[in-house]
Amino acid sequence: MSTSFKSAMERLKCSIRDVPDFPKKGIVFKDITPILTNGQLFRLAVTIFTERYQRKSVERIVAIDARGFIFGGALAHHLGVGLTLVRKKGKLPYKSNSIEYGLEYGQGTLEMHIDGVEKNQRVVIIDDLLATGGTAEAAAKLVELSGAEIVEMAFLVELGFLKGRERLEKYPIFSAISY
Amino acid sequence: MSTSFKSAMERLKCSIRDVPDFPKKGIVFKDITPILTNGQLFRLAVTIFTERYQRKSVERIVAIDARGFIFGGALAHHLGVGLTLVRKKGKLPYKSNSIEYGLEYGQGTLEMHIDGVEKNQRVVIIDDLLATGGTAEAAAKLVELSGAEIVEMAFLVELGFLKGRERLEKYPIFSAISY
Repeated sequence: MSTSFKSAMERLKCSIRDVPDFPKKGIVFKDITPILTNGQLFRLAVTIFTERYQRKSVERIVAIDARGFIFGGALAHHLGVGLTLVRKKGKLPYKSNSIEYGLEYGQGTLEMHIDGVEKNQRVVIIDDLLATGGTAEAAAKLVELSGAEIVEMAFLVELGFLKGRERLEKYPIFSAISY
Repeated sequence: MSTSFKSAMERLKCSIRDVPDFPKKGIVFKDITPILTNGQLFRLAVTIFTERYQRKSVERIVAIDARGFIFGGALAHHLGVGLTLVRKKGKLPYKSNSIEYGLEYGQGTLEMHIDGVEKNQRVVIIDDLLATGGTAEAAAKLVELSGAEIVEMAFLVELGFLKGRERLEKYPIFSAISY
């Protein structure tokens, strides 16, 4: 890891805002919007992903609802590849595959169009945050259902203490910033 | 309007998929995901926005939850400016302003962080679809609450028969594709 890469990460990390008691009491939320609203920092954040994937023969970016769309849109546009959406239940209009996944209380469902990715396509899955890994795991299963290949799962921020990386141990994982 | 611009629009328009009875019976949904998943078409769609705004001294892109994040992320990254999110109620972690707006049945609420845009900042508001204009109008009010200037509101697709443009008549409106 180069010195300039590390200092870029530190700059981004310093800009993340701690918001106590969101989404509920006792949780300290890592708010990335100060990175987004600063043009230089946002470009820096996207560049981490574009530099990482531009020589890896990536054919499709799969972005997770909803903040994953921000980085997924910028990355796919820069690489000149297509973007596929993984969305919460009922949001996608066309025929979709569904995967249920466990939430802290109850279950959630993620969906992807049946023509969202192609067999053997080289895919990067992207989201802003890796927490427990439940959402990312469901997205990976949707991609695998279509027979595509997961090159890597990419996150701007990883909350290491929630052990999402262990849950996703069968996939290559990259995160720009870790706590 | 140049011939190549018109033919690009036609290529995009032909790629939009009609999905009958979504989100409910009798509505024909214009599904833009075939544009997103094709790298060439997605780049073409984003280029329409980047070329339009790159010489207009735009200082901030405001993107509407959730498909607006796709184009907003790509556009802000390309222009090197910041991105501000307008989200549905309860999704933003920090102190926010709220605007209620009418839905077909009942009301929705959109929110933006109080530090989302700066006074007098030149802002483009972006979303994938202009339908009745209720969401876009609420987003515009949030931007105005912070004293920023709306350069234009930009949409990939406009459903002209729903008359959103009339509702938004006090703002400059651009749409790439119209029905």
